[in-house]
Amino acid sequence: MAKALEILSTENELFRIYLFYSCVLVLKVLLMAPLTAIQRFKHKAFANAEDAISEKVKPKTHDNVERVRRAHLNDLENIPVFLVAGLAYILTNPSVWLATMLFRVFTISRMIHTIVYAVYVLPQPARFFAFLGGLLTTIYMAVQALIYFFV
Amino acid sequence: MAKALEILSTENELFRIYLFYSCVLVLKVLLMAPLTAIQRFKHKAFANAEDAISEKVKPKTHDNVERVRRAHLNDLENIPVFLVAGLAYILTNPSVWLATMLFRVFTISRMIHTIVYAVYVLPQPARFFAFLGGLLTTIYMAVQALIYFFV
Amino acid sequence: MAKALEILSTENELFRIYLFYSCVLVLKVLLMAPLTAIQRFKHKAFANAEDAISEKVKPKTHDNVERVRRAHLNDLENIPVFLVAGLAYILTNPSVWLATMLFRVFTISRMIHTIVYAVYVLPQPARFFAFLGGLLTTIYMAVQALIYFFV
Repeated sequence: MAKALEILSTENELFRIYLFYSCVLVLKVLLMAPLTAIQRFKHKAFANAEDAISEKVKPKTHDNVERVRRAHLNDLENIPVFLVAGLAYILTNPSVWLATMLFRVFTISRMIHTIVYAVYVLPQPARFFAFLGGLLTTIYMAVQALIYFFV
Repeated sequence: MAKALEILSTENELFRIYLFYSCVLVLKVLLMAPLTAIQRFKHKAFANAEDAISEKVKPKTHDNVERVRRAHLNDLENIPVFLVAGLAYILTNPSVWLATMLFRVFTISRMIHTIVYAVYVLPQPARFFAFLGGLLTTIYMAVQALIYFFV
Repeated sequence: MAKALEILSTENELFRIYLFYSCVLVLKVLLMAPLTAIQRFKHKAFANAEDAISEKVKPKTHDNVERVRRAHLNDLENIPVFLVAGLAYILTNPSVWLATMLFRVFTISRMIHTIVYAVYVLPQPARFFAFLGGLLTTIYMAVQALIYFFV
């Protein structure tokens, strides 16, 4: 059995790859806030009275704002659990190639998901497949780790 | 003081137990998405026009869908912070028995919470106690770690 | 290049500081649940029929409840990604002083954010600057780690 202290080392290529994709995903999630702000100002749809540019603008919702917010929430539902599953998975000492592929498929899937949901809306099943790409990679990693660490 | 490099080792039983419960919780969170989808199709209550099976079905909400969504959001409010508190806690070198009990109580509490909230609705205080089970275990672990790592 | 196994040690001051602020932030997020409950009881605005103190109280929303819920969601959008970026950042072997400052600015920013959003509402740009304090520290750490771990 591999030792975690050799795996959780910045000299270990796979751990570096994991940290790289983690940071890409962190920045991707953070991008949703300015994206929401742009839509709020464009449609004058603010959540709070104090946010509006003028006192005459009452808080309201707009579907383009809500689409970005739903895409953001979907990120929160999928990205933190992926980062946990991914860390558990690399501790099972998997092939670097396969693990890198899984991180890449997940990251690209989540980016496509946001684009087709909230930037350039495409008909289904575009969003469904982007969601599935993220879901299946996470489930695969979590199940592999679950079997490996079964106590 | 215990060394983290001995604790964060896959040869350390407690770290393996932590990783096992983490993966169980990851899969539990991911299960909320198909659970939401089932309720959406059952009640024809979709969030987006492009998701509906027919163009005549307008986006709408339904309480059974919203219950699953609230249970999902409650998971997001409690599970990621538990995983952080749990990791900090095992680095304090606690008793394996107590830590395992805390992970188990948290995991079972969260499962009961979802069931009584969104699958088979029970009157209060069922959900309140399930929520409390998760909350108190997390607070205990975070406070123990806070005292241990106080700088 | 620094070895992760020396960094991820409870004997390493920076890792201890990271764990300390992580636990503070975990408790801060958990505090949002009782804060929401207080507002729900105060305004008799419950999300579910079974939560109300009397059967005559129908589920409804109230802006003071929604403000706490939006502050809570904003925490979920920013705190887990900060904890990931922060861990990746300390693995780049930064100055202890700078890293501690970044953790401190983030933590205080998030506390101010909740206060001006949901406890004692202040006009903008109070919340905007509190949000920015959290966002910029996270982006800085994620970008630094991204460059360091670029593969």
